[in-house]
Amino acid sequence: MQGELSGEKVIVAGSEADILGKGYGRKIGRLELSLEEAAFLLETGKIEIKEEKEKELNLGDFLKHALDVSPKFGLRYLVYKDLKERGYAVQPGGVDFWLYPRGAKPGEKPARYFIRIISEREFLSLKELDALLISARNMRKEPILAVVDEESDVTYYEVKEAKFEFVEMKKEKREEKTKATLLGDRVLLWDADLAENLHRNNFYGKLTKEKRLLLSLVEAAYLLKKSLLEIEVRRQKTEDSPEPQTSALKPVNFEQFIDYASSIESDFMDKYAVYEDLREKGLVVKTGFKFGSHFRVYKAAQQKHSSYLIHVLPEEYVFSIPELSRAVRLAHGVKKRMIFSFKEKAGEESFIRYVDIGRMKL
Amino acid sequence: MQGELSGEKVIVAGSEADILGKGYGRKIGRLELSLEEAAFLLETGKIEIKEEKEKELNLGDFLKHALDVSPKFGLRYLVYKDLKERGYAVQPGGVDFWLYPRGAKPGEKPARYFIRIISEREFLSLKELDALLISARNMRKEPILAVVDEESDVTYYEVKEAKFEFVEMKKEKREEKTKATLLGDRVLLWDADLAENLHRNNFYGKLTKEKRLLLSLVEAAYLLKKSLLEIEVRRQKTEDSPEPQTSALKPVNFEQFIDYASSIESDFMDKYAVYEDLREKGLVVKTGFKFGSHFRVYKAAQQKHSSYLIHVLPEEYVFSIPELSRAVRLAHGVKKRMIFSFKEKAGEESFIRYVDIGRMKL
Repeated sequence: MQGELSGEKVIVAGSEADILGKGYGRKIGRLELSLEEAAFLLETGKIEIKEEKEKELNLGDFLKHALDVSPKFGLRYLVYKDLKERGYAVQPGGVDFWLYPRGAKPGEKPARYFIRIISEREFLSLKELDALLISARNMRKEPILAVVDEESDVTYYEVKEAKFEFVEMKKEKREEKTKATLLGDRVLLWDADLAENLHRNNFYGKLTKEKRLLLSLVEAAYLLKKSLLEIEVRRQKTEDSPEPQTSALKPVNFEQFIDYASSIESDFMDKYAVYEDLREKGLVVKTGFKFGSHFRVYKAAQQKHSSYLIHVLPEEYVFSIPELSRAVRLAHGVKKRMIFSFKEKAGEESFIRYVDIGRMKL
Repeated sequence: MQGELSGEKVIVAGSEADILGKGYGRKIGRLELSLEEAAFLLETGKIEIKEEKEKELNLGDFLKHALDVSPKFGLRYLVYKDLKERGYAVQPGGVDFWLYPRGAKPGEKPARYFIRIISEREFLSLKELDALLISARNMRKEPILAVVDEESDVTYYEVKEAKFEFVEMKKEKREEKTKATLLGDRVLLWDADLAENLHRNNFYGKLTKEKRLLLSLVEAAYLLKKSLLEIEVRRQKTEDSPEPQTSALKPVNFEQFIDYASSIESDFMDKYAVYEDLREKGLVVKTGFKFGSHFRVYKAAQQKHSSYLIHVLPEEYVFSIPELSRAVRLAHGVKKRMIFSFKEKAGEESFIRYVDIGRMKL
């Protein structure tokens, strides 16, 4: 079969086009192949391509022509070929390609996914990730991020709005407030019974051998807001009163505590907002430090292993692709979902958003 | 037993000091306990502490006093207590603490490790990591990094100069140079025999179904330097000669190729220097993209799994601790060693250094 190169297309005469069967090109009398389709058919020996009806092009010449007219051709062709070799029907269009469910042919069933191609050297902002989700809703397709690495391998990622499953939490009884002491960057709760209850029922803090509870700043802030705690700080000795006579301790309110915590952790408010949102959804939230993210999240306090890793980012954050790969790979390795959280500002209001990114085996 | 608080020490009279046995404090007639030792003995009920020979201090008061006189006390006490509860002999001193081998008592055997304490909120520069290795050589001890996280848990990391085991590589026969074509950000090698040999013997590139070899820029640069390859680029059409008559292709030399590659990847030279150094050591080096690092390294081409993840950093790099935790955790999860590489400049010369960081179960 013969085609003729014409800029970003290869044209096959109508009489010859039927040999290819469905799945290649767009037929409008004659058949128009995209550069990726034509390169694939050329490499697999199913087509010959001539330039200006004269010189026949070998694969090297054709690839170079394609790169000249379309700088992203290299990445596009690697992804196209990878998908074809995996036995999928794929068509240029949409964001980059449309992908059909396994076994389906274009025209018989609608495409299920759209593919966004990116090189491991590029950057991807949270806004662009979010735009994929918006496109997905509008087109009623699922987005796939196809990353081409240095080794010319393609890794596929699914991107979706996170859905949390959760169970009803045991409510803490609001008896009298218990006293806790601020010790630098953590809070120590002294009452052994409450310490055990808070830890056993809702997995707050770290219970010491001596049945005291070491709370992190976000945990303490949340329990303070819920009026379960009274946090005392030492009154600073001032020049006016070098030795306070009555009591060296005074309780702080929520706003004062938040200010103090923000002086220790610059992104405290962003972290706290997500912590509170997740706790209010009934989830159990602990630090994700050992996994390099802000939080690990359990569906219930009785779960042995956490289900999600959550990393809090500013709305304008920009990922490097290796960084994204690392986070998702780590979560995958410990059988958790990797979720990126950010605060979306919409006019006066703001919402906490959760974007779930996972590896996809195609 | 009674002690008296005196600034950063708690003093126990000589007559009472023997009850404690070895392992606490420094004895100079009377016994001087550090704040961590005193807090631990107070919390476990083995000592009473008075301030100015009068007021007895409870644990809360003592902890607050200790935090006032030593801002790092909080972290130090959490690590001290964690090590004591794990049954280790530990003594204040060295960088932060000395740690003795399991079962050994101070005075009987020398300390084996020294501990550097850091909060998950702090930062750690490559230079500081390197300083740990220098201290280790001088003191003939092994360094341990103890990271205290938000949850008051302690994670221990061992830090060492990386040692590579390797086997002799199969030398590529230097026959005639084979032609390869630069295609954007990769290089395509056409000769099926050489493609198979390079891939099978030394795991270069990605072998396509059609037995062509897709080489990354670092791989192509290395093979070009080894004179195994001739890379052709399309001559740019200029205004003077819009259509080059004789040949549209010309070969590039190593320097030209390096310049071109650096225009695509800004840190290409740093990456290439490490790639070449590792290949020259006989190791097989591939991209580490799927693990979020620059390279994954095999001890031999026949190995099924790679042994090291290597990330190349500038000499002045500063880690955030969660970032360090994430990289080491990921490597640990896939049974590889995490190694950070950097170029150390020493006057006119420079060396490529490899620092290996791993989790340590104490």
